[in-house]
Amino acid sequence: VRAVVLCEGHFGDANGKTAHGLVRYGERFEVVAVIDSTLAGRDAGEVLDGTRRGIPIVPSLDAAPIAECLIVGVATDGGRLPPEYRPVLLAALDRGLHLVCGLHEKLNEDPEIAPKARAKGLTLEDARATPPIEEMHFFTGEIDEVACPTIAVLGTDSAIGKRTTARLLVQGLRDAGKKAVFVGTGQTARLQGAKYGLILDRIPNDFLTGEIEHQVVRAWRDEKPDFIVIEGQGGITHPAYPGGYEIICGARVKGVVLMHAPGRPTLDGFPQYTMEDPERAVRICELMSGHPIAGIALNHENVDHAVLGRIAAAYRQRFDVPVCDPLWDGVKPLVDGLIGRFS
Amino acid sequence: VRAVVLCEGHFGDANGKTAHGLVRYGERFEVVAVIDSTLAGRDAGEVLDGTRRGIPIVPSLDAAPIAECLIVGVATDGGRLPPEYRPVLLAALDRGLHLVCGLHEKLNEDPEIAPKARAKGLTLEDARATPPIEEMHFFTGEIDEVACPTIAVLGTDSAIGKRTTARLLVQGLRDAGKKAVFVGTGQTARLQGAKYGLILDRIPNDFLTGEIEHQVVRAWRDEKPDFIVIEGQGGITHPAYPGGYEIICGARVKGVVLMHAPGRPTLDGFPQYTMEDPERAVRICELMSGHPIAGIALNHENVDHAVLGRIAAAYRQRFDVPVCDPLWDGVKPLVDGLIGRFS
Repeated sequence: VRAVVLCEGHFGDANGKTAHGLVRYGERFEVVAVIDSTLAGRDAGEVLDGTRRGIPIVPSLDAAPIAECLIVGVATDGGRLPPEYRPVLLAALDRGLHLVCGLHEKLNEDPEIAPKARAKGLTLEDARATPPIEEMHFFTGEIDEVACPTIAVLGTDSAIGKRTTARLLVQGLRDAGKKAVFVGTGQTARLQGAKYGLILDRIPNDFLTGEIEHQVVRAWRDEKPDFIVIEGQGGITHPAYPGGYEIICGARVKGVVLMHAPGRPTLDGFPQYTMEDPERAVRICELMSGHPIAGIALNHENVDHAVLGRIAAAYRQRFDVPVCDPLWDGVKPLVDGLIGRFS
Repeated sequence: VRAVVLCEGHFGDANGKTAHGLVRYGERFEVVAVIDSTLAGRDAGEVLDGTRRGIPIVPSLDAAPIAECLIVGVATDGGRLPPEYRPVLLAALDRGLHLVCGLHEKLNEDPEIAPKARAKGLTLEDARATPPIEEMHFFTGEIDEVACPTIAVLGTDSAIGKRTTARLLVQGLRDAGKKAVFVGTGQTARLQGAKYGLILDRIPNDFLTGEIEHQVVRAWRDEKPDFIVIEGQGGITHPAYPGGYEIICGARVKGVVLMHAPGRPTLDGFPQYTMEDPERAVRICELMSGHPIAGIALNHENVDHAVLGRIAAAYRQRFDVPVCDPLWDGVKPLVDGLIGRFS
């Protein structure tokens, strides 16, 4: 499906993470353009990580190539639709594009957008709407039948690279001859077309572990893989978005890869909270899962190669686990560590 | 409001906890009878804890005194309505009773019950339905304005006595001359008429800390108390229902009172999971909150006075905190500990 991704004013920053995920990887949509007038004329992949992907950044919907749908590519902190995006969505409906949105604010309940889409016979997909209760699962304990190691990529903050690291781990395990399956937990992974996954943010508390268990068990039964790698949400020690506990429990995680950004001064969206040392998150992950962590993956934000290398060496010694930057170094040390521990 | 509580087959067991809460305490409903044919003729308070409360247990709806509403008094593991309760609910509507239910399965969506209530002009209150997004709050950090200690009663299991202990702590603090406010987090506390609270189970993951913060900040602004005591949900180390993290973070908890049942062999609803020693839960609470725990409250299930006394003494020495059984001993040691630490 050919898609235009709307990310005006946010491509390349932490709020643009849905767009970044769709540019990086996708089995469901073929991204033909990203809309962000502040970066118009550049290649989306090049802005993201220096790798050209042939996806142009265009200044407006008018300048975008023909497509079948428009995806809202921002994940705002409150989950609300930025007001300046509204006229673009209405114009997209006028051009006959279906709309896809992963925000909490629902297009299907919008008093302008919903009737217009209905009148034109176009679909509105609200990826983050809470599913009906009949479609959700309670935890049963059937997770105990999963005989391969379940690995979770958790973090000390949100918007830190957990999904990307999880994808790279799956690819790295496959390159090493292991069968590995990815289980997504966010709306971006869903929009990327992940075969196994759920959108954790939208699930009522009582169903969290059950929904995770259900997807991990599905992945196990269908694929009988050597490893299942689960994307994390939130941050272990994040004061606003504590996350990872429900994944450790629901998926009976055998090894946590902890993602950390040592050069990030304050937490994503919360300038009043400083980023702390990863020690506390490591200890909590180990106590919760009952296993030593499987490695630390670094996000190099605000840190140069030399400094990052020193930090990695220090963590390696202190925590006695593989440490690497997945984007600069690749994930081979983490993959070798997982295979060494679980084979 | 005069209410009959339907608890057929479950009064006195772990699934009856909504009924137990309503018999113990309530500002909203006056319970005139509990329906449970297996215990008909006895006094509900006496069955619960040996204290007569003048609430008869009756064998059927026909035998109940006149009331205005019927409350479903069970909290089943799946949150589904037991099939044998359906004819009783339909009969209650025939008698002109409003219905209240805290299960996930919604009376308002039931194909038999909903149209019948509408036809008769009776209300159906689904306490556990997810609120509309406009009514929910994201975490903002305004919790930092709360200047009194926030205390959470968390547990090593569900259905272990967290709400009752929290209520007793509030009463004990008041008896000691302190202004204390209770913040509920379950449907039972809501049905008891708690002025501050939310129903955590029904809140989508992304709003958990924000909804907790909002209620704690409301309690602080309205009451300016000396202590805020928050009821916990789930269990810190419960493999199916890990809970407490969102409360520790959203309420910036300064002291955790950990509830534990040393004589409970396996976890509530999960006979395959043995109850573990509280050590791991204590350590996780301390790491998450950044404070030593404030005390341990024991549930004496399956343990006699002598054994419980020895366990309490051992925990007291091992964890260096007040330890008591709130129902047998009262909560004075915990109250004295809180006042000592925070005054």
